[in-house]
Amino acid sequence: MKTVITYGTFDMFHIGHLKLLERAKELGDRLIVAVSSDELNKVKGKKVIIPYDQRAKIVESIKFVDMVIPEDNWEQKIKDVKDNNVDIFVMGDDWEGKFDFLKEHCEVVYLSRTKNVSTTQFKNSAESIIKLLEQMVKELE
Amino acid sequence: MKTVITYGTFDMFHIGHLKLLERAKELGDRLIVAVSSDELNKVKGKKVIIPYDQRAKIVESIKFVDMVIPEDNWEQKIKDVKDNNVDIFVMGDDWEGKFDFLKEHCEVVYLSRTKNVSTTQFKNSAESIIKLLEQMVKELE
Repeated sequence: MKTVITYGTFDMFHIGHLKLLERAKELGDRLIVAVSSDELNKVKGKKVIIPYDQRAKIVESIKFVDMVIPEDNWEQKIKDVKDNNVDIFVMGDDWEGKFDFLKEHCEVVYLSRTKNVSTTQFKNSAESIIKLLEQMVKELE
Repeated sequence: MKTVITYGTFDMFHIGHLKLLERAKELGDRLIVAVSSDELNKVKGKKVIIPYDQRAKIVESIKFVDMVIPEDNWEQKIKDVKDNNVDIFVMGDDWEGKFDFLKEHCEVVYLSRTKNVSTTQFKNSAESIIKLLEQMVKELE
């Protein structure tokens, strides 16, 4: 049985997250996802909208995902790989090369991301803002 | 085997959607989710950010969900219930009473929603807007 692991924040869950999880699972039989804790994101200076519990619960509820663990610090990856008998470590190729130090412990795969910057996306972003503003107004009523 | 059905848009998938699906599934053994088509939302005058294909794919990938069908029009519910041997029709209680006409075909359950309008939520909305604006700027680079 091949065990795959990946790491991410999974803030405001969307189709890009889902496709990455699907492709990660296809590389093996069991998929572990490490979801970054709110504390780690704070340390990184990364703004996150959805709190850890909700991000973890959504990722855990995805059919391709077998287990979720918290990512609490930068240094835990070697331990995670060893503790969970991980065969393949997967990340998006925006991280290309960054995790090559894991190659002595497992296979390291960088998945290409299909960039999709389009006018549609821009329009959607604008519409998202309008929708969020409308929700804020509703919540104040 | 008890079959449960529910209907929704599931735009920008979040923990509220997930909890509703989880509670719906707990009422039976098989959960069918009808996801509103983009065309239906247009007819309803409902603004939706995420296109049908992506909304359907995410809902379909949730562990509690056994099948997704499109909701194309207002009138299909009786047919859906009959065609899929549905035992229980579930909606959030913001729809209380609105689907009682289905009671001659199956059980109708309205689940209470836990409203959670808080300053945290308001702050999160504001932060969502900031994040979206930042993404828009990035996309323009």
